[in-house]
Amino acid sequence: MNQKQLLRPVADAATLSAPLADFNTADAVEYLNTLALPQAADTLAALPLPRAVKLLEAPELQRAGDLVAALAPARAAALLGLMADDRATDIVHELDTAERARLIPLLAPEARQSIQLLLSYPPHTAGALMTTEFVGVPADWTVAQTLQHIREVERTRETVYAIYVLDPQTRQLQQVVTMRRLITGAAEDSILDVAQINPPVTVGPQLDQEEVAQLIRRHDLLAIPVVDEQQHMLGIVTVDDILDALIDESTEDVHKFGGVEALDKPYMQIGFFEMLRKRAGWLSVLFLGEMLTASAMQHYEDELARAVVLTLFIPLIMSSGGNSGSQATSLLIRSLALRELRLRDWWRVALRELPTGMVLGGILGLLAIVRITVWQLGGLHDYGEHWVLLALTIGAALIGIVTFGSLSGSMLPFILKRLGFDPASASAPFVATLVDVTGLVIYFSIAALILGGTLL
Amino acid sequence: MNQKQLLRPVADAATLSAPLADFNTADAVEYLNTLALPQAADTLAALPLPRAVKLLEAPELQRAGDLVAALAPARAAALLGLMADDRATDIVHELDTAERARLIPLLAPEARQSIQLLLSYPPHTAGALMTTEFVGVPADWTVAQTLQHIREVERTRETVYAIYVLDPQTRQLQQVVTMRRLITGAAEDSILDVAQINPPVTVGPQLDQEEVAQLIRRHDLLAIPVVDEQQHMLGIVTVDDILDALIDESTEDVHKFGGVEALDKPYMQIGFFEMLRKRAGWLSVLFLGEMLTASAMQHYEDELARAVVLTLFIPLIMSSGGNSGSQATSLLIRSLALRELRLRDWWRVALRELPTGMVLGGILGLLAIVRITVWQLGGLHDYGEHWVLLALTIGAALIGIVTFGSLSGSMLPFILKRLGFDPASASAPFVATLVDVTGLVIYFSIAALILGGTLL
Repeated sequence: MNQKQLLRPVADAATLSAPLADFNTADAVEYLNTLALPQAADTLAALPLPRAVKLLEAPELQRAGDLVAALAPARAAALLGLMADDRATDIVHELDTAERARLIPLLAPEARQSIQLLLSYPPHTAGALMTTEFVGVPADWTVAQTLQHIREVERTRETVYAIYVLDPQTRQLQQVVTMRRLITGAAEDSILDVAQINPPVTVGPQLDQEEVAQLIRRHDLLAIPVVDEQQHMLGIVTVDDILDALIDESTEDVHKFGGVEALDKPYMQIGFFEMLRKRAGWLSVLFLGEMLTASAMQHYEDELARAVVLTLFIPLIMSSGGNSGSQATSLLIRSLALRELRLRDWWRVALRELPTGMVLGGILGLLAIVRITVWQLGGLHDYGEHWVLLALTIGAALIGIVTFGSLSGSMLPFILKRLGFDPASASAPFVATLVDVTGLVIYFSIAALILGGTLL
Repeated sequence: MNQKQLLRPVADAATLSAPLADFNTADAVEYLNTLALPQAADTLAALPLPRAVKLLEAPELQRAGDLVAALAPARAAALLGLMADDRATDIVHELDTAERARLIPLLAPEARQSIQLLLSYPPHTAGALMTTEFVGVPADWTVAQTLQHIREVERTRETVYAIYVLDPQTRQLQQVVTMRRLITGAAEDSILDVAQINPPVTVGPQLDQEEVAQLIRRHDLLAIPVVDEQQHMLGIVTVDDILDALIDESTEDVHKFGGVEALDKPYMQIGFFEMLRKRAGWLSVLFLGEMLTASAMQHYEDELARAVVLTLFIPLIMSSGGNSGSQATSLLIRSLALRELRLRDWWRVALRELPTGMVLGGILGLLAIVRITVWQLGGLHDYGEHWVLLALTIGAALIGIVTFGSLSGSMLPFILKRLGFDPASASAPFVATLVDVTGLVIYFSIAALILGGTLL
């Protein structure tokens, strides 16, 4: 883009859309993402409708909601009506209430109905992910009739590779036929002759997307039907929607585990203040929690004054508790997400983490005792006349704290799940904070026990 | 399963396979997973070959390698030969060298060749994920010829929904035809008439699976062709293979971020000692690193003895550095994984993290100053006559440490990538350890500056 083009106030349609002529959809989307919003909206307005629809449907297009809001309402409604209804719904989700109220009445009745249905399901559920644009045929059709129907509707369906056979009277879902089986059938065969033998795997509209992904994976499907309680089909969730959802969800999970509110935009596109807000909240909450360590330390101020040597190991001991907790949490978050473990398995996990934590703590405790002994006997540092007792205190405290860290780190995801939260909301900093405060109390209690009468 | 069945030493084929008769593949796999290994292997041996193949191909089947190793070699080879070659390769990957040497010569030449090709690619690459069982047709065929060919080979191909059109002479990839476009073509049309207009999107066999996933997602594909440098097709990676790979990769990423070596089995199936090994390694390395905090503290022992009040805030200050570092790392790990940022963008990130860290540190510093003031004036704790200077020290240290934490947490993934490691290897505990040691030095330097001559 040269200087002259940037300066020209309004460009004509041909000039605006010219650079996109040679691009495939993915490249055109990337080009649009680089333009300023008004320019991108003008370009979108200048494109032929089907091309603009393709670009708006691409999950990589950024600011899709802003772009649609910047178009003339009639054009925006026309584009939304032509788009796959699940993607159109995503865009409507991004609009504010006033923009929605302005656009929705302009939509064709059919598109309006399906978008409003999809808007009604909570995010991250099968209902919110699904599309209503599937191929459904009555059970009394033949293979030839079905193929002819698919040829006619192909362009308006998200996938034609799974065909849903419905009861001709009740329209309940009876069977699923895959395209690969359909084309092996003879023209006059009944559609039921090429259907799968097993009853179809279905999900309800409220099911979480992670469970939908597990089912699609487990049964090796390209799409899964979403049905109501009477087995009437509401829509389908396709494998590419699930792929998008899973990539977004793993980003969200890593962000949450790192202790940030999930970001919905790429790093460099988030405004400075929005970025601050996403991070300052949790950071402040953790800080307030961690203030309890200062209170705990104040409580032991006399002991600290008498035995300054005890403070030398506070960071070492506390970080070990946090690290072992973070390990256990990361293991359990994934086991719960993959449904390897259920809520009721918590005690089996606790019974494993208890001895695991004790042995891990024992290993670290041994390392600490060796370190203190070597430094003391090697003359690198003088820990005082009671250095043997001190070494024992550090070793014992590490066993206690690592055990507590492993145990509480592994139980936290269960507790969150039990309270109705996503177990993946358990973050490493949160576990560390939890373990830090208790860790100090464990440390000073063990010190009082072992060093009472000598150093303390 | 009742007591009697468990006690009977050897059961006949009919009895063993009886419980599976009514199960679909996913349920049968779950049932097999619950059996002891010898019993599961006997059951697998008793099943008809096609059924056993289906179960072995399911990604949820656990101990697939052990099961195949426990079968009679001839049967094991027969099963591997009938399986999709990418899944068979996964199983061969799990076998030890002796078992591989025993089984591979028993395979049919075609299966042997493709499994050996797939074994030659590094894990997590397109080559390792791909299957060689795709539909390829010469460019001079008609729609009818292609459809007839698909009907014949359908059962032996992983997907028939993408058809690869090859140059009849050189066998180089020319075009891709989707099944949905194919069935809209007239029987006598050339296959090229229904092909996509854009040149096909292809990948090389060495490309990382995460980049393959991005391309599949970006271009909304069901499969992507893997080609050599002369555009000869080596195989295809299908969307369901990518789905499996992504789920495994997000588990691995969360584990790594939590500071555990990635586990390849569900939590409850990992032996006690294997679990210890996966955790003790990193935990000990971090512990040894964190020992530097003890050295740093020893260095400041005189200051600590003179001003015990300084120790009260050590856990608070250090954890804030670790938490802000963990936030920044989680943001950058995902941005690099999603290719939102490239290696060369490191300085743009550094320029953002610097002011972000300073403001975040300022917020926490303010909270700390408020807390000390309230406690002091409210009579909750006496921080001594120099409490104002102490509060300033804590506030300034927080700005320094949170800035350092954000900066080093965000640069770590870049450094790992630059060194050729996976940026996702940056773990929250590692960042915390890194920041802890430096944090102490920052804290004591600022304390010496502000409190020198009064408290110190």
